[in-house]
Amino acid sequence: MSGNTFGTLFAVTNFGESHGPAIGCVIDGCPPGMELSEADIQPDLDRRRPGTSRHVTQRQEEDKVEILSGTYEGKTTGTPICLLIRNTDQRSKDYSEIGQKFRPGHADYAYLQKYGLRDPRGGGRSSARLTAPTVAAGAVARKWLQQQYGTVFRGCMQQVGDVAIGFESWDHVPNNPFFAPVADVSELEAYMDRLRKAGDSCGARIRVTASGVPVGLGEPLYDKLDADIAYAMMGLNAVKGVEIGAGFASVTQRGSTHGDSLTPQGFASNNAGGTLGGISTGQDLEVSIAIKPTSSIITPRDTIDMQGQATQIVTKGRHDPCVGIRATPIAEALLALVVIEHALRQRAQCGDVRAPLEPIGSSFL
Amino acid sequence: MSGNTFGTLFAVTNFGESHGPAIGCVIDGCPPGMELSEADIQPDLDRRRPGTSRHVTQRQEEDKVEILSGTYEGKTTGTPICLLIRNTDQRSKDYSEIGQKFRPGHADYAYLQKYGLRDPRGGGRSSARLTAPTVAAGAVARKWLQQQYGTVFRGCMQQVGDVAIGFESWDHVPNNPFFAPVADVSELEAYMDRLRKAGDSCGARIRVTASGVPVGLGEPLYDKLDADIAYAMMGLNAVKGVEIGAGFASVTQRGSTHGDSLTPQGFASNNAGGTLGGISTGQDLEVSIAIKPTSSIITPRDTIDMQGQATQIVTKGRHDPCVGIRATPIAEALLALVVIEHALRQRAQCGDVRAPLEPIGSSFL
Amino acid sequence: MSGNTFGTLFAVTNFGESHGPAIGCVIDGCPPGMELSEADIQPDLDRRRPGTSRHVTQRQEEDKVEILSGTYEGKTTGTPICLLIRNTDQRSKDYSEIGQKFRPGHADYAYLQKYGLRDPRGGGRSSARLTAPTVAAGAVARKWLQQQYGTVFRGCMQQVGDVAIGFESWDHVPNNPFFAPVADVSELEAYMDRLRKAGDSCGARIRVTASGVPVGLGEPLYDKLDADIAYAMMGLNAVKGVEIGAGFASVTQRGSTHGDSLTPQGFASNNAGGTLGGISTGQDLEVSIAIKPTSSIITPRDTIDMQGQATQIVTKGRHDPCVGIRATPIAEALLALVVIEHALRQRAQCGDVRAPLEPIGSSFL
Amino acid sequence: MSGNTFGTLFAVTNFGESHGPAIGCVIDGCPPGMELSEADIQPDLDRRRPGTSRHVTQRQEEDKVEILSGTYEGKTTGTPICLLIRNTDQRSKDYSEIGQKFRPGHADYAYLQKYGLRDPRGGGRSSARLTAPTVAAGAVARKWLQQQYGTVFRGCMQQVGDVAIGFESWDHVPNNPFFAPVADVSELEAYMDRLRKAGDSCGARIRVTASGVPVGLGEPLYDKLDADIAYAMMGLNAVKGVEIGAGFASVTQRGSTHGDSLTPQGFASNNAGGTLGGISTGQDLEVSIAIKPTSSIITPRDTIDMQGQATQIVTKGRHDPCVGIRATPIAEALLALVVIEHALRQRAQCGDVRAPLEPIGSSFL
Repeated sequence: MSGNTFGTLFAVTNFGESHGPAIGCVIDGCPPGMELSEADIQPDLDRRRPGTSRHVTQRQEEDKVEILSGTYEGKTTGTPICLLIRNTDQRSKDYSEIGQKFRPGHADYAYLQKYGLRDPRGGGRSSARLTAPTVAAGAVARKWLQQQYGTVFRGCMQQVGDVAIGFESWDHVPNNPFFAPVADVSELEAYMDRLRKAGDSCGARIRVTASGVPVGLGEPLYDKLDADIAYAMMGLNAVKGVEIGAGFASVTQRGSTHGDSLTPQGFASNNAGGTLGGISTGQDLEVSIAIKPTSSIITPRDTIDMQGQATQIVTKGRHDPCVGIRATPIAEALLALVVIEHALRQRAQCGDVRAPLEPIGSSFL
Repeated sequence: MSGNTFGTLFAVTNFGESHGPAIGCVIDGCPPGMELSEADIQPDLDRRRPGTSRHVTQRQEEDKVEILSGTYEGKTTGTPICLLIRNTDQRSKDYSEIGQKFRPGHADYAYLQKYGLRDPRGGGRSSARLTAPTVAAGAVARKWLQQQYGTVFRGCMQQVGDVAIGFESWDHVPNNPFFAPVADVSELEAYMDRLRKAGDSCGARIRVTASGVPVGLGEPLYDKLDADIAYAMMGLNAVKGVEIGAGFASVTQRGSTHGDSLTPQGFASNNAGGTLGGISTGQDLEVSIAIKPTSSIITPRDTIDMQGQATQIVTKGRHDPCVGIRATPIAEALLALVVIEHALRQRAQCGDVRAPLEPIGSSFL
Repeated sequence: MSGNTFGTLFAVTNFGESHGPAIGCVIDGCPPGMELSEADIQPDLDRRRPGTSRHVTQRQEEDKVEILSGTYEGKTTGTPICLLIRNTDQRSKDYSEIGQKFRPGHADYAYLQKYGLRDPRGGGRSSARLTAPTVAAGAVARKWLQQQYGTVFRGCMQQVGDVAIGFESWDHVPNNPFFAPVADVSELEAYMDRLRKAGDSCGARIRVTASGVPVGLGEPLYDKLDADIAYAMMGLNAVKGVEIGAGFASVTQRGSTHGDSLTPQGFASNNAGGTLGGISTGQDLEVSIAIKPTSSIITPRDTIDMQGQATQIVTKGRHDPCVGIRATPIAEALLALVVIEHALRQRAQCGDVRAPLEPIGSSFL
Repeated sequence: MSGNTFGTLFAVTNFGESHGPAIGCVIDGCPPGMELSEADIQPDLDRRRPGTSRHVTQRQEEDKVEILSGTYEGKTTGTPICLLIRNTDQRSKDYSEIGQKFRPGHADYAYLQKYGLRDPRGGGRSSARLTAPTVAAGAVARKWLQQQYGTVFRGCMQQVGDVAIGFESWDHVPNNPFFAPVADVSELEAYMDRLRKAGDSCGARIRVTASGVPVGLGEPLYDKLDADIAYAMMGLNAVKGVEIGAGFASVTQRGSTHGDSLTPQGFASNNAGGTLGGISTGQDLEVSIAIKPTSSIITPRDTIDMQGQATQIVTKGRHDPCVGIRATPIAEALLALVVIEHALRQRAQCGDVRAPLEPIGSSFL
């Protein structure tokens, strides 16, 4: 109810602050009997980790995950899995000025209004650092879904500021610091270098997909699969827009174009983005998200102080010039958390039973 | 868990099918002592009602709401409020063909895959008719929020298919069948008439806002106010995209532009759309949604039958050529349900206490 | 959150007041594909119905249930099932005095303190009449559990006031108005007649059991099967005590006696009452509950009025001299609601998988 | 949903196993602004700690709590509070035999049936050691309730096996290892010494109370305050029975006796145990629980092995001969967790408003 738990059947409770001793999460509801060790989780954390290129924050965090509970002899037992990540690089001194002023675009003002106090160290609870436990939990979900249904989650960069990025191949994504699905990222690098020199930041657009999604996931009326995807994505720091399938392009589409025809070989298109009536159809889930430019920039901004007086602020410290860059693995993890939640709900209500509709979707479950 | 309840502290449980005897909802958690009668709810239902112009479905439903419980001597008692709406115009014969074929863009296929059976009468549970109880519940939420905090919810049409609509004034919205904030809707009428003659349908883009929103609503980490707004909006039938504030435009914005400056007189702009770090700032909530074109069109479409064989389908019946038109009051209701939920959560955890930050936001609570 | 929903995966949301137009519930999460009609539910309601003997309240309520949603062609569809029961015999005039005084042992005082107002008509929401929708929902749960696992729920009277009742056979239960498992209830009838003449009321002790319960139901740590049973039973109007298995007798037992030995043929005893570590073992669930004497009696009682002044009150009207009598079918229904909830949770997390431990428990799933 | 979270508004998620690296919990929903340090929590943990007398298990655990998150400059911030307790004394070798046999009265069999595997080290997740995080979370709840409403929680031993214990004064409770409210515990000590020599164990009966409870807590219909108390208490390891107020004694009471009269000075008695209609009246909450004898005894017991073959088992290791002894502080903590949950719910729905009924209850809020 206080908003720190994601999901109910596969429930991830997130804790910690940017500059406290540790961050982490407790996963309650993971099915028993799955082999699980830190080695299953660390690779996803490493993809999200800061300090890996000059285009992201230079904070050095090892982000090493430790499994504190929930496994026995290398297998999940069905009991809560506590994942702990210790904070190691907390340069709190960078944040001294922030405690007395409100940074434009930051959560400072809202937290103070909500709670009557706030933790100014690195944004405290509002820091994007808190996405690390989400990624860790997502890795557990991904492994189970992959083993159970062959579901695979992927994400890539579509646009960085003014630079639109085409799609060449998923194979390129791990080979550049932008998660871009293209071979040549020199234009992007130049763009980012200019931006950094200008002391400014930019937005981004990310694509996230899931393939091999079981048919029948999602709950009418309110807890539609796409509704929960939108919730997950908009809850990611800095996200300002979410699209499923054709998204905003569907405004100017005609019904005769938008509705995906069914053929004996499957759907002829995917304007729906993998859901109909809020329930998965077995097509790929297709999600696109808009991420705002980082609010922490060294360009001076107008603001007020704690007494409501006009002043200016420059946010020093080590910040991502484009927070969208590191968002890709996080968005993948969130999509996995939505899918596993609905897979377990489907098991509960419908017992995994599926109408034998051949041949569409026959390969999904 | 089966997705038919919206909210937890102000929990709306929705029931019924398009062509069953009745639809309705149970509201659990409405604060006691508020004056409430059917007259508070009916106006919002009437705004959503079908058959009010030639541009929407010609189904005739009175949509008369009946309060079955939860009030005594005209006041809410704090116990569950059951709202019942009887179905009166169910021409089931229009739907005979649908039971054996899958309509492109419809939930038929997904429901059958999920449950192993489905109710083909008018889409059964997946019908947009089930938004009526949501609107009714929203009316209760709106009254309470208006009385308690002066919060006001408004929506208007921004675009219908290819026709973009400017913003002149909220005053125009109730004066035309499109919820358009402009005086002259002749172009829109002509566009819709051509579309209907062509037997096709189109998408739409809607804007929804809330003003007078208390500061401090929204829960980090996952249940951010904007995350729950995205969940609510994407869960509305036919919605394919959701934006908060600058939305997708923030991709090409710079940080020096996007982050809204604070001044002693308030925020200087509203790219954030009313939330920072997922918590309301007291600025207007600004939401924009994309609605796909109606899938029920009389243009023949390729599909398959229950045996997986190729066939074609024409969806007769009485359908909205642009479902987006009637979506405005529904989106307003959903936004109200999100806000009341978070207002009650804030009362629970923080006891309505708010830091006395003058003068910004000082008028909100 | 406001306490009117029982369960989460098989969620029953109860609404209505004793003297409003109708009472009922919405079941969300019932598995699809089960045959269901009013005829499956009415018999359990009839067992709970008032006015069936001189030993219970003479209020005449038909308690006829109507299914408003959630079925199609006689089968559940997986969507919410709304069950409606209209109130027909509301003699509100009997309750005129109550509005200005607090009845000892009644909820009047507590409701007023909680909500700042209350509905005095027949106890409003606190009336035992609100157990009717619980019984109706329980009937749906019982049918599914019976079909799926062969689970059977039974209850009987163990004690009425000073009269302890032995156990002869379940067969006697439906043959007397006390749900007593004995052939001869003449002593009980005489006792009740004397009590009624004295204008007083008495308590009761009920036994409820479930046999054919699947192994492995119940969730550590907090949501143990027995914890949820205790919650369900203590939530039944007038219940003051709950025991599982040996109950309070275990205080004076030794460990060498209490712990049920396991043998190749099964457990040698059932002090545990069907759960170990909060998880079902396949043994019968054994529950015993204490029900307080009816608070509505015609003997004058000391109390205060709304101004806090000393006064007396006599509760006229048509009341059960022993509310425990009609509690048996309600307690059975509640036990069924607990079991189905945990059965669905087990399907979600463990996928119905059960370790092949032969021969103990092998017949249960 | 998987049962490891207690509460929803003050939600305590418990993790860890008896012999893993650590146990702990995450509290989500604690109101912000309360001073909190480990020193507020440690005393309650110390009261529950093993190894403090010869009458409890000799396992040596420091049970030192560490606050990992949720506070800043010594105050709660409204964000999740992670409490960590490291396991230090895990003599796993004591449990080698258990992995292949089922201990009568233990959760071994049920866990294996539920999950298909189990952690045999010290009972893994089913160990009473997991009550330590509950006690820690309870300490946080107690501090807030004490500060906010003056609510005080107390518990004492009522009976140990065959030895009934009178009530002299709360002052004696901390002065003996049994939490007995009497000055002279020599009879108890002799009884326990004989029991230990006999290699057997015994049950106990505990009383738990809360005074200074605000009026109006508890939610009709299902989530009554007493229902949630029953849930909490029955979920405590080894509890087999729960009573509120008069409890099972109410079976033989008359209505003219049981219903507590109201006078201008307050209630004349407390058969109700502090709730009416499931809602707190401002009287003391009075709860009594039955705890079964420890199942781990050195007397040989009949059982079966993993292959279903008859065998015998002796449970060595360091076990409490009467688990009831250390249950007192745990039961107090659970009662506090129930009360804080309902206090926050009351704030949410009713905004802390209370009808000004003088003089009854006027001192409570």
